[in-house]
Order: sequence, then structure tokens, then C-alpha cells
Amino acid sequence: MVRAVYPGSFDPVTLGHLDVIRRAACLVDEVVIGVLVNRSKHPMFTAEERVEMLRECVKDLPNVKVQTFNGLTVDFARNSEAKIIIRGLRAVTDFESEMQIAQTNRIAEPGIDTMFFATSLQYAYLSSTIVKEMAFYGSDVAKFVPLNVAEKLRSKFAEQQNG
Amino acid sequence: MVRAVYPGSFDPVTLGHLDVIRRAACLVDEVVIGVLVNRSKHPMFTAEERVEMLRECVKDLPNVKVQTFNGLTVDFARNSEAKIIIRGLRAVTDFESEMQIAQTNRIAEPGIDTMFFATSLQYAYLSSTIVKEMAFYGSDVAKFVPLNVAEKLRSKFAEQQNG
Amino acid sequence: MVRAVYPGSFDPVTLGHLDVIRRAACLVDEVVIGVLVNRSKHPMFTAEERVEMLRECVKDLPNVKVQTFNGLTVDFARNSEAKIIIRGLRAVTDFESEMQIAQTNRIAEPGIDTMFFATSLQYAYLSSTIVKEMAFYGSDVAKFVPLNVAEKLRSKFAEQQNG
Amino acid sequence: MVRAVYPGSFDPVTLGHLDVIRRAACLVDEVVIGVLVNRSKHPMFTAEERVEMLRECVKDLPNVKVQTFNGLTVDFARNSEAKIIIRGLRAVTDFESEMQIAQTNRIAEPGIDTMFFATSLQYAYLSSTIVKEMAFYGSDVAKFVPLNVAEKLRSKFAEQQNG
Amino acid sequence: MVRAVYPGSFDPVTLGHLDVIRRAACLVDEVVIGVLVNRSKHPMFTAEERVEMLRECVKDLPNVKVQTFNGLTVDFARNSEAKIIIRGLRAVTDFESEMQIAQTNRIAEPGIDTMFFATSLQYAYLSSTIVKEMAFYGSDVAKFVPLNVAEKLRSKFAEQQNG
Amino acid sequence: MVRAVYPGSFDPVTLGHLDVIRRAACLVDEVVIGVLVNRSKHPMFTAEERVEMLRECVKDLPNVKVQTFNGLTVDFARNSEAKIIIRGLRAVTDFESEMQIAQTNRIAEPGIDTMFFATSLQYAYLSSTIVKEMAFYGSDVAKFVPLNVAEKLRSKFAEQQNG
Repeated sequence: MVRAVYPGSFDPVTLGHLDVIRRAACLVDEVVIGVLVNRSKHPMFTAEERVEMLRECVKDLPNVKVQTFNGLTVDFARNSEAKIIIRGLRAVTDFESEMQIAQTNRIAEPGIDTMFFATSLQYAYLSSTIVKEMAFYGSDVAKFVPLNVAEKLRSKFAEQQNG
Repeated sequence: MVRAVYPGSFDPVTLGHLDVIRRAACLVDEVVIGVLVNRSKHPMFTAEERVEMLRECVKDLPNVKVQTFNGLTVDFARNSEAKIIIRGLRAVTDFESEMQIAQTNRIAEPGIDTMFFATSLQYAYLSSTIVKEMAFYGSDVAKFVPLNVAEKLRSKFAEQQNG
Repeated sequence: MVRAVYPGSFDPVTLGHLDVIRRAACLVDEVVIGVLVNRSKHPMFTAEERVEMLRECVKDLPNVKVQTFNGLTVDFARNSEAKIIIRGLRAVTDFESEMQIAQTNRIAEPGIDTMFFATSLQYAYLSSTIVKEMAFYGSDVAKFVPLNVAEKLRSKFAEQQNG
Repeated sequence: MVRAVYPGSFDPVTLGHLDVIRRAACLVDEVVIGVLVNRSKHPMFTAEERVEMLRECVKDLPNVKVQTFNGLTVDFARNSEAKIIIRGLRAVTDFESEMQIAQTNRIAEPGIDTMFFATSLQYAYLSSTIVKEMAFYGSDVAKFVPLNVAEKLRSKFAEQQNG
Repeated sequence: MVRAVYPGSFDPVTLGHLDVIRRAACLVDEVVIGVLVNRSKHPMFTAEERVEMLRECVKDLPNVKVQTFNGLTVDFARNSEAKIIIRGLRAVTDFESEMQIAQTNRIAEPGIDTMFFATSLQYAYLSSTIVKEMAFYGSDVAKFVPLNVAEKLRSKFAEQQNG
Repeated sequence: MVRAVYPGSFDPVTLGHLDVIRRAACLVDEVVIGVLVNRSKHPMFTAEERVEMLRECVKDLPNVKVQTFNGLTVDFARNSEAKIIIRGLRAVTDFESEMQIAQTNRIAEPGIDTMFFATSLQYAYLSSTIVKEMAFYGSDVAKFVPLNVAEKLRSKFAEQQNG
């Protein structure tokens, strides 16, 4: 059985992430989405919220699981008994930082490989950061994230403005 | 069963190509190497010679096949009943032309996806063109191509100089 | 009055080119499309055919004209009494060669400037070369070029196969 | 009438910004420079100081206005009744982040387009950040910013050292 | 005598840095490594620790010196009476920021030039940041840094966990 | 003594090439310019003409020599007993192909290194190809090449038009 991990911050998950997840789920036996719990960054959503949003989005995909992880991606892949790390490629700047990580991972753990997908054109310039900025200023983000995430963003910003 | 195609000119196959082939063969059930028969380019080796060199190189990999094809990669994939096109990524210039082809292929045939591998570091700047130029001037190419290819290059250039 | 030129080979015009033309026509008073007659390249369509296809595509845009030109783009702009050269930007490799041309043009003729548009996402990886290759192998190109061009491509290849 | 906005931090304005402003002012009827008031970043100059420096620099250009804005660029353009967002392109890393913003803006608001200018060669590698760092260490920045800005930088750092 | 400076944070020095140092030491008469004391960044190692680790690594190279500096690289070069600034180039993103600095330096001080080396392939994707992250999570970094640095990293993280 | 080679086609030499040559001549003991005699390309100027133009341009630089070479750059460097290959870097596309060559050369001959210079800003987008195209159409190229080369270009094109 070929298992793959798909690591990321998913703060929050976008339609671009879901596009990669759906395509990967067609090609490998199991995809484990890994939500990075990074103490040094300040995510908008807690790890639990990010996992919950992702689980809602992939509930129709039986071979996709969601969990949190901490530390190096390559350790997460090894602990998940995965042979593949999945990554989406949008642009050239993505490409270089992804190559840096993929090459370092292969030296650290030759048994785990990285498989890249080209992000679909309509999501090629989409990022969680841009989505959060748009939502912050009250723009409609329904073209960029799943419905449950769009609602969650709205209530999160309403909360912040009232708090 | 997940079958993948790995298209290219392979004029001739390098250690960089073989690295991608070996890694892909670990992740999918079958890899079909497609040697492009392109009438407009002038390859150094005939399609038959390129297939023969490749078969020699992959004879220890039971789930790897080699054949020629003509026309569009996406048609070759469809005719091979493959769901995946495999490509190696070396550098940024690679990345852009590969993205162009992958995006066009996905629009033409949404059921076939492209999976990219980062070329291993030691082969990151290797190309068939550089190998041929080095061999032409009598440099040793044993660090860049398999042994049978290095010999074939030597005899090819000896032939040309005597012809 | 601000007049702009939009130079290119248009061999043939694609939906990506038309997207740039329509957007430019909203922003300047007049757009003069310049079809490059380049003796050293071997276009598929004659200059007359390329002009005719373009005229058909822009007949609903009253401030867009089509003509041929020969020589340097900057001379074509000067002779057309245009202050702007319009170019579409798709990817990083585009960007660099376009910058090279724009910078050289500005040194040669400081009174003429280059204005870049980002190609719309759905056409970001589209090129005349890919369209011709797809049409050559009998693929449907209706998603990539206007209808009149798709028909012209079909009859051109039918002609070549019978000739 | 074609109105364009030119958004940025301008902390402080450089000769590279002014080059873009002058060129844009020749091609559109009105340019509205938008000084971004970003609460999360910590600018060296207040929004008022940045506006004042800019107004001094463009006082000879009757069709250029300067004002502050807050929020998304695309909302600023819409509120200014502008059809065009103007951006300068220096290098490849610029290009990618600019494309990301331009593409997202066009999806959010199809009636507003982005027009790019290639930064003139002598300013191609200039940035407000580098200018501030040089001024901080007492280097002469007269080759990089207008005279009034150079003086303002000197007095700002003198203030900080005495404060 | 041609003296060169090699500036950086060296937090900590990696095998990639040492590769550049050794190659530069063959080509110029003297290399002065400059350890940047940057108050705004928060290095893992103090300037003294970084200098000490570097001195240990280059003790067999008689024409290499190590010292700290503060401020602009170009001022450090001038004060060291060096004609050359040495930089390693790994990837495209490196290339652009390095070009930006080199071009600005040449305008500020035409008598000092920048000389670039292509980082050796096996270190092409290596960075101090990745090394620290790996060490933080207990991964073996012996393939990426000299022995004395690997030990220092181990004791530093042990210290932090106990502190 | 440190000797360096500076290989190229120089068809013809531009002000960008001369900028690199002058800067290199300040840093190494001897620069040997190598004019590539490439049978497969069709240069505008014969190897002899290119050498002659270069010699005229560098006659005030006592430590610069000009000669032709054939074959691989690394062999030319070895035969010239040079430790360094000098290359100018203009843009990202340059960077990648130059890295490819430099990395291959270092594997083939570890004793010879490549030293890169950033092309001065005013020549950053200059190429022999653009210069020839401009001269062909009668544009003034005096801003891009030395005087003797501008004259040679003029007489060459006059010759072609009369022949």
C-alpha cells in the first residue's frame, strides 16, 4: 500500500489545497493530511479548528485522513509509515523553497520521496494569507475557499471586532 | 492498478533520467517509458538505439517498460491507459516549460495528471545535450551516463569521425 | 490621443492574445496590432492570413486596427505615432525576455514606453506553438483559439496532408 | 477619462517610484498615488510624512494626486473610480508577487486592471528598505532618493540618535 | 595584494560556507570572513561563538582571517582595504537578492566589486536555518555542518531544554 | 600567478563584455579572452574579425590577451593553465544556464573554478543578438558597443546589402 502525507499550515485550507488533495487521493492508496502545529508562528485558527475545517472538506474522500503534527515533515512522514510527501507547486518562488526542503529531506531520509503537483490554473496565485487579508477587509472569499471555511472566516473576524 | 508514463527524447538516457525512473517505479504499479520519435528534431541516436539503451538500463526493474511514441504526450498517456505523466524537475527554466505542458494537458484531458520529481542534487544540472557535447570533444562522461551509454557514445563518435 | 501598438507573430492569434487586446482597448484610445513579417522564421500562416484572422476576431472593437510590420518594434511604434508598446506577461521566462526588449527600446527611443498586462489565469500557459502542435495531431483546440482560427487550423492541416 | 491608482508604502519614496509616476502621468489622464496606512507594519515615516514628501516630489505634475488609503488595493481603486492599478516591475521575485496580487484583484473585481511598467535600469535594484539601511549607517543616499527625502532621512536618524 | 571579504551571519557556519571559503582562499591573497553583528535579528549563537566556530574550521587555511563587523558590507570591505566581496550563489531567489546588494554596493563604492561562486551541488539547498530546525528536532546534522558545529548545536539545544 | 579565461562568442563584443573584462583585469594577474570557434553556429563575424575587434578594445589593458579556442571551455582553461573561468551574470535565465555549465565543469575538472560578475546595470539587458538586430535595421548602436565595433557593423551590413 502506498501512503502519502500532505503537510501544511492550512490556516485556513483553500480551494487550491483541496484540488491537490483530491488529485493525490486518486493516485495513492491513502493520503494523511498533516496540520503543522508551529509554536513560533501565530496562526489565525487553532490546530483543532484547522483540523475540523479540513475534515469537513474531505468527508467524501474515504482514503483521506487529517491529523496534526509537530516538528520536521520528514519525521511526520516516517512516523506515518508514508513513502511520499505531497506538495503543490504554484510559482517559481514556491518551486525553489520546495526544492530546498525536498532535497534536504531526501538526504536525511532516502526512503521518503516528494511528489509535486502543479496547482490548477484557477488556483495558481491563491494563498491562505491573501484569503485572510481579503476576509479581514470584508471582501467575499467564496471563490477561494470552501463554504464552511468562508463562514468560519466571517465569524472569526466578527468575533475579533466585537472582542 | 496505477500506471504512469515517463516521456522524453532520451538522446541518450542519463543518470538523471534513471534516478527519476527508479524512484517512480517504487511508487506506481507500472512505468511506461515513452521514447519520442520526433521527425522535426535530429536526434543523435535512432529511436531503436535509444529504446535499446534504455531497456539495458532498466532490465532489473520488472515494472518498467520501454516503447516509442509519436505525437502528443497526453495522447500517449491515454493510449497507454495511464493516469499519470511523470516528469523530473531540475531548475526554474525546466519548471516553467513543464508547468506550461502540464496545465495544457490537464485542460485537454482532465483524467490524466502530471507528477513531478525533484531531480537528485548530483544530477540537477545534467542534460543529454551537455553529455553529447562532452563526448564529442572526447571528455569522459562516465559520471553522467550509464556504462552502456558511455560506450555507445564513444563508438558513435568514432563512427562519425571515420565516416 | 493615446495610441498603442501590440506587436507579435500571431501565428495564429490565441484567446490569450485576444484577452490582452480587449483589455488594452478599454484603456487607450487606439490599439494598432502589428503582425510581424519575419523573413527568417517560417510561420505556418502567411502575413495576410494572420491579418485576416485577427481582423475577423476584433471586428467588434472599433478602436483596434490590424496591420503588418517589418523590422524593430520600436520603429513600428514610432512610425505609428504610438506612445505605448503593449505586451502580455505569462511567466518568468517571458518576463525576462520582455524586460530585455523593453529596456533596450527605452534606451533607443525614450519617448516610447512599454505597458505590460498579466495574462488572464486561464490563458497563462497558452502559446501559439502549443496550439499548432495540438492541431497538427488532431486535438481539439476550441478551448485555446477563436472559432475562425480553429477552422483555419483544421483546413491548413488537411491541406498539408493532401498536398 | 482614464484614472489610475499607484499604491505603495512609499517609506520613503525613491527615484524608482518617481520614474514610474512620471511615465504613468504621460499615459493616463490622472494618477492617484495611494499611501498605504498599514497598522501591522512599522513604517519609519508616518503616513502624513510620506504624503508630504510625495506631494513635494510631484508638485510639477498637475495630473498626479496623493492620498492615504487603508485596506485592499482593489477597494482603493474602486473607491477612487479608477480603472487601472499601476505597478513597477523590477525583478523576478517582484514579478511573481505582483502577478499573484494582480490575478486575485482581477477575480475580485474584473472591471479593474493592472498595468505594469519595467523599472528603468538605473533603479532596477533599488528599494526603500536598502535606502533606509544605507541612511541608518550614514551613507549618502542622494543617488537613490529625491533631495527632500534625503534631508528628511538625515534629520530622522539624527532625531533617533539624540532621542 | 588582492584581499577579499566574505560577509555573512554564519549562525552557524555550514559545509556550504566552508566550500566557498576554501575555493576563494585559492584565488585571492587573503580572505577576511566578516561575522555580521546584527542587533535587529536574534541569532542562535553569539557573535563570539560564531567567530570561534569559524576559526576552528579554517585553522588550516593560513590566508583566512575571521572577525566581526557591524553596518554595511561595503563599509566593512572598505575598512578592511579589500577590493572584493565574495558571495555564494545557490538558487534563483539568492541570485536576485544578491544582485540587488551587489548593484547597490557598486553604485555606493565603485572601487569594490562582488565575485560570485556557484555553491557546490551537494550544498546547493543547504541553509543555516534548515540546519538549526533539524538540530532543534534532534535530527543528525553531520552531513551539513563541520563536526565542531554539530557538537555545539547539540549542547546549545540541550542547554535550552534544561534552561 | 592567477590566470583566468573569459570565454564567449563575442559576435561582436559589447560594452557589457568590456565591463566584465576591465573588472576582471583588476582582480587577477592575467585574463585570456577565448573567442569560441563554433562550427555549428553561423557567426556574423569570422573568428579573426572577432579577435581583431577585441584586441583593439583591450589594447590599453596590458594583462589581457585574446585568442581563439575550439571545444569545451574547461579544456580551454586547462590548456591555458588558468584556475578561473570568468562569466558575467545578467538575468535569471543567464544564471541557470551558467550554473549548469559551472557545475558540470567542476565535476569534470575540480581544479578549475568559475567566478561570476554581476553585469553593470546599464548593460544588464544587452546582448550581441539584440545589437546585431538593431544594426541590421539601421538603428544607432553606439550606446551598446565600442566605436570600432559600431563601424564594423555598419560596413558589414553595407557589404551584405550590396552583395
